[in-house]
Amino acid sequence: MFLTIEDFLDVAEVQALAQLAGQAKFVDGRRSNPHNPTKSSAIGDTTDPAARQAAQIALTALQRSEAVKNFAFPRRMAVPNFARYEVGMKYGPHTDVAFLPLSSQPLRSDVSCTMFISDPSEYQGGELAIGLGTEMVRIKGKTGSAILYPSTTIHEVVPVSSGARLVMITFIESQIPDQLQRDLLYSLGEVRALEGLKIDWRNRVQLEYVIANLHRMWAR
Amino acid sequence: MFLTIEDFLDVAEVQALAQLAGQAKFVDGRRSNPHNPTKSSAIGDTTDPAARQAAQIALTALQRSEAVKNFAFPRRMAVPNFARYEVGMKYGPHTDVAFLPLSSQPLRSDVSCTMFISDPSEYQGGELAIGLGTEMVRIKGKTGSAILYPSTTIHEVVPVSSGARLVMITFIESQIPDQLQRDLLYSLGEVRALEGLKIDWRNRVQLEYVIANLHRMWAR
Amino acid sequence: MFLTIEDFLDVAEVQALAQLAGQAKFVDGRRSNPHNPTKSSAIGDTTDPAARQAAQIALTALQRSEAVKNFAFPRRMAVPNFARYEVGMKYGPHTDVAFLPLSSQPLRSDVSCTMFISDPSEYQGGELAIGLGTEMVRIKGKTGSAILYPSTTIHEVVPVSSGARLVMITFIESQIPDQLQRDLLYSLGEVRALEGLKIDWRNRVQLEYVIANLHRMWAR
Amino acid sequence: MFLTIEDFLDVAEVQALAQLAGQAKFVDGRRSNPHNPTKSSAIGDTTDPAARQAAQIALTALQRSEAVKNFAFPRRMAVPNFARYEVGMKYGPHTDVAFLPLSSQPLRSDVSCTMFISDPSEYQGGELAIGLGTEMVRIKGKTGSAILYPSTTIHEVVPVSSGARLVMITFIESQIPDQLQRDLLYSLGEVRALEGLKIDWRNRVQLEYVIANLHRMWAR
Amino acid sequence: MFLTIEDFLDVAEVQALAQLAGQAKFVDGRRSNPHNPTKSSAIGDTTDPAARQAAQIALTALQRSEAVKNFAFPRRMAVPNFARYEVGMKYGPHTDVAFLPLSSQPLRSDVSCTMFISDPSEYQGGELAIGLGTEMVRIKGKTGSAILYPSTTIHEVVPVSSGARLVMITFIESQIPDQLQRDLLYSLGEVRALEGLKIDWRNRVQLEYVIANLHRMWAR
Amino acid sequence: MFLTIEDFLDVAEVQALAQLAGQAKFVDGRRSNPHNPTKSSAIGDTTDPAARQAAQIALTALQRSEAVKNFAFPRRMAVPNFARYEVGMKYGPHTDVAFLPLSSQPLRSDVSCTMFISDPSEYQGGELAIGLGTEMVRIKGKTGSAILYPSTTIHEVVPVSSGARLVMITFIESQIPDQLQRDLLYSLGEVRALEGLKIDWRNRVQLEYVIANLHRMWAR
Repeated sequence: MFLTIEDFLDVAEVQALAQLAGQAKFVDGRRSNPHNPTKSSAIGDTTDPAARQAAQIALTALQRSEAVKNFAFPRRMAVPNFARYEVGMKYGPHTDVAFLPLSSQPLRSDVSCTMFISDPSEYQGGELAIGLGTEMVRIKGKTGSAILYPSTTIHEVVPVSSGARLVMITFIESQIPDQLQRDLLYSLGEVRALEGLKIDWRNRVQLEYVIANLHRMWAR
Repeated sequence: MFLTIEDFLDVAEVQALAQLAGQAKFVDGRRSNPHNPTKSSAIGDTTDPAARQAAQIALTALQRSEAVKNFAFPRRMAVPNFARYEVGMKYGPHTDVAFLPLSSQPLRSDVSCTMFISDPSEYQGGELAIGLGTEMVRIKGKTGSAILYPSTTIHEVVPVSSGARLVMITFIESQIPDQLQRDLLYSLGEVRALEGLKIDWRNRVQLEYVIANLHRMWAR
Repeated sequence: MFLTIEDFLDVAEVQALAQLAGQAKFVDGRRSNPHNPTKSSAIGDTTDPAARQAAQIALTALQRSEAVKNFAFPRRMAVPNFARYEVGMKYGPHTDVAFLPLSSQPLRSDVSCTMFISDPSEYQGGELAIGLGTEMVRIKGKTGSAILYPSTTIHEVVPVSSGARLVMITFIESQIPDQLQRDLLYSLGEVRALEGLKIDWRNRVQLEYVIANLHRMWAR
Repeated sequence: MFLTIEDFLDVAEVQALAQLAGQAKFVDGRRSNPHNPTKSSAIGDTTDPAARQAAQIALTALQRSEAVKNFAFPRRMAVPNFARYEVGMKYGPHTDVAFLPLSSQPLRSDVSCTMFISDPSEYQGGELAIGLGTEMVRIKGKTGSAILYPSTTIHEVVPVSSGARLVMITFIESQIPDQLQRDLLYSLGEVRALEGLKIDWRNRVQLEYVIANLHRMWAR
Repeated sequence: MFLTIEDFLDVAEVQALAQLAGQAKFVDGRRSNPHNPTKSSAIGDTTDPAARQAAQIALTALQRSEAVKNFAFPRRMAVPNFARYEVGMKYGPHTDVAFLPLSSQPLRSDVSCTMFISDPSEYQGGELAIGLGTEMVRIKGKTGSAILYPSTTIHEVVPVSSGARLVMITFIESQIPDQLQRDLLYSLGEVRALEGLKIDWRNRVQLEYVIANLHRMWAR
Repeated sequence: MFLTIEDFLDVAEVQALAQLAGQAKFVDGRRSNPHNPTKSSAIGDTTDPAARQAAQIALTALQRSEAVKNFAFPRRMAVPNFARYEVGMKYGPHTDVAFLPLSSQPLRSDVSCTMFISDPSEYQGGELAIGLGTEMVRIKGKTGSAILYPSTTIHEVVPVSSGARLVMITFIESQIPDQLQRDLLYSLGEVRALEGLKIDWRNRVQLEYVIANLHRMWAR
């Protein structure tokens, strides 16, 4: 399932991130996936102070977001990083690695997140294209928006034909790794929130009984 | 989980069953569980015409019951049979066998059902006692009522000290063998039914989305 | 996952189906989903001889298709039926019911299938729109093509604004109900088929070992 | 499954806890569940030194108990806290939240535990009533006893009509979250312990083989 | 897990099968696995009357065997067939197909069974060699014995260097497809049978409670 | 599944370990399994400096081994320890305990590892014998080799009849506790590695898609 969050970053945050991207050191994107010959992009140098400051801004936004919490059931998040695609750059079809080798313990990538800093008007091409068999979902988010999508797919960034695409990306380890289970629990939570006080008390208790038990049953 | 259904059988059906029990041949209850030294009861001879007629009345009641359908998600049911406990009779703690050896293919016992023909005023003792660790649920249903309870427990019929206890019993193979899963799906179905038209259409579609997918996921 | 199969039906079959649709009796589409106020369509009367003949043509095509077999791991299929959407008709967001009440035993809907008889040029609107959270996949297949998609989604047919949309639809119960598991097994099968004799014999045996065991493990 | 442990606390511990309850600060019980309008109780202020001392006594008792260890397979336990119900107080039907937001990482509530400090003779009403569909288990433990029951149920504390009910409560995250699996493993462990040296060595090795593998298989 | 059953067939049955093998028509073994270039053997023609008679003898032996029943939890069995390996013949490393395409519905191969008609003294080579990573189990059964082993392995028949190896083979679909689960349930059943009346009644009820619930939980 | 790794330790490491074994204090092997009357062996005293130094050498070898990483998917490893079997010593049939009580948190034993310091020529008997029902795998590794085998089996060390057997043993908690799942993922990884650049890029992406998703799905 996909969740686009409009206004995930406010205007000041977007400006700060764009400015930090201008200061930060970038390295060859193949550093994070050396075996993929179809990848050409620039990613932030994670030891660079400006990149670290940007990561902190993005993490703060992720942690304050109720939508992220309700949709992704995050347990841990990887440090967000810049990715910049200039003209001719792309990231061919690939699967996100199952476990990111963090220093403490590996982080399972269940939900991938792209935060859009550039506005779609600033570049041609560069869509995030997520394969679903013979169909494809193509996403080019507005500046300040974020898209959450399952890490379990084969996806790509199509070549940029003009301008430059600047995003931040990260990976979320969810309490609930199975995508359908996660979506069912999110959906029940939405029903509870949207029906609110309209629902009979006794039915609300039943709904909470189901939600709590599915949460226990599916969390890993 | 337990479901007591009052007025599961109507007065005419109870009378017919009591009368058929008077006509039918009974055999030693140990025939269905020869290795259990704590069992002493009489059960209907399944080849007897009166016992067969009684089975048909009980099956009809089971199949028409919306409560049984919503609670137990029945796939198949064993042929109901009489059990009679006279003074001193009992069925010590036991587990229902996992698979009943029917002629076609074995029937998994997920939900056990007792239908009460005698009224509680007609006998002393004879409760159905269902063990839950150091606690116990004791059931002595009204005439015409039925109790559905998980076949997965250790349970017993305590000794009858006066009068006679006449019941019919059967076993249901559920589409959803896991007890908690079955109860969660039942609970969501009840919320949907009770909220009815009060719930927003969009939330109702979400609820049906969850129900349909849990049903697919858990059915075996 | 989605699978579009071009030329699923040949020209003669499409013509025959169009002709049979002209002869067959149609009934109100709400017959198959009476509680959904957003549904307005016409569906074939399943007792009508022309509708039955059409069903047979569609079933034959489904059974001969290697793509259907490899992708959907079909165990059983529902009888295909006509659906016709004329101007103003639609089928609002809904979930396919988990179990279709067939005469023999309920059929679990794992994969939904739409076979396109009308060509997209013959009508405006009428896309099959499949919800994936805040994204949507929209499908308007060529005449003679078929689309297979998971029955587990919320999907809709958007209103037809001109012309008429004639399709046949059916539901497949898969050996492998979980969508991701089914897709992983399909993907391994494709790798085996595409690598063919290029793959070392010893690696091929390993691949078959994995495929056979996943198949056993996931089939229900 | 339910486990009542008599003499879980010794006389000195019960006296110490009663005394500490007299000294500790109590706050409105809704603090731990603000959305539940049916809750009226007083709970210990977890920052109060007397409440902390009481928690330590209760934790020590939980950790030394072989019964708790064998029955609940505890991985972590929440800090126990006082709950006091005076006349008219109650806690209506509710489900325990699936994950308690501890500072380190959320604790999944699999097994709930009530330790009885008041004796049943000191208050009327105030039973812990645990719903099992249309049946209910009602518990009013002796002073010094503890009851362990699944956190997965809808349960309540019925209104106190005279006197006051003082208990300590906590939640256990089990290695084995599924209730039936946990009970089966507990049952096998009991058989091994009770048969002891009577069992043939070869059969004992088989039993340990089963126990060890179920433990591995079910632990999460 | 492996189960060798000595004296699975009695002397008369072995003689009858050897005689029928002399009468029956044999065909190229690649008929049952045309894509495997490492297979060279002769298998019975399943339409031949002598082969059918042999199949019936083998089926009878399988169905009467308590060991087969307790170990394999058979739901269905494929029709047994002859396999004959003469000098130079073999069947290289392979995995048994997950589902055998029977006329009614596919049969999942969970347990493979070889029944030995030749005595090991009658041929050199021809062992059944079952791979377990870098180790291998090699089996050359006595005349009249049967070996049951998991169909989930990569296994082979090594080349016969002198004499001829005549066996019958079949495949069992188990109620319990997972090999470890099946073995745990078998082990508990053996403990129950071997301890017999020595075990305390209350412990026996607990053991039956565990066995019945594991059986329900794991059967598919 | 079994994995024998030749030259797991180099000559210098074997010599160092043999020397450290000569210096280290040994204690009665029953210390680690006091209830098993069939165990007679000597194990290193884990507080002894020479035993600790040996443990470090063995850990280093385990952590550098690509074979261990690919085959066992290790999450954590217990501290390796010496075991010495002199004439008449043995360790009768037993199951490894499911969880080792480490100071931090219990370690689940999924894969057992024996590292051979003595050469097979130095002792008679002393094989590691791993039961698989009525078959058995017997292992007597070369000096410097290691064997990894599932902790889920009943296994034994048969009596030493001459010389002395010196090994180091440890236990691995795997990311993937289920043995068959672990082996399937290992097998796919081997296919990917062995086919290497020969495989079409598009098929390689598909294979990685399957591997990454099985890894996510099965890791616990």
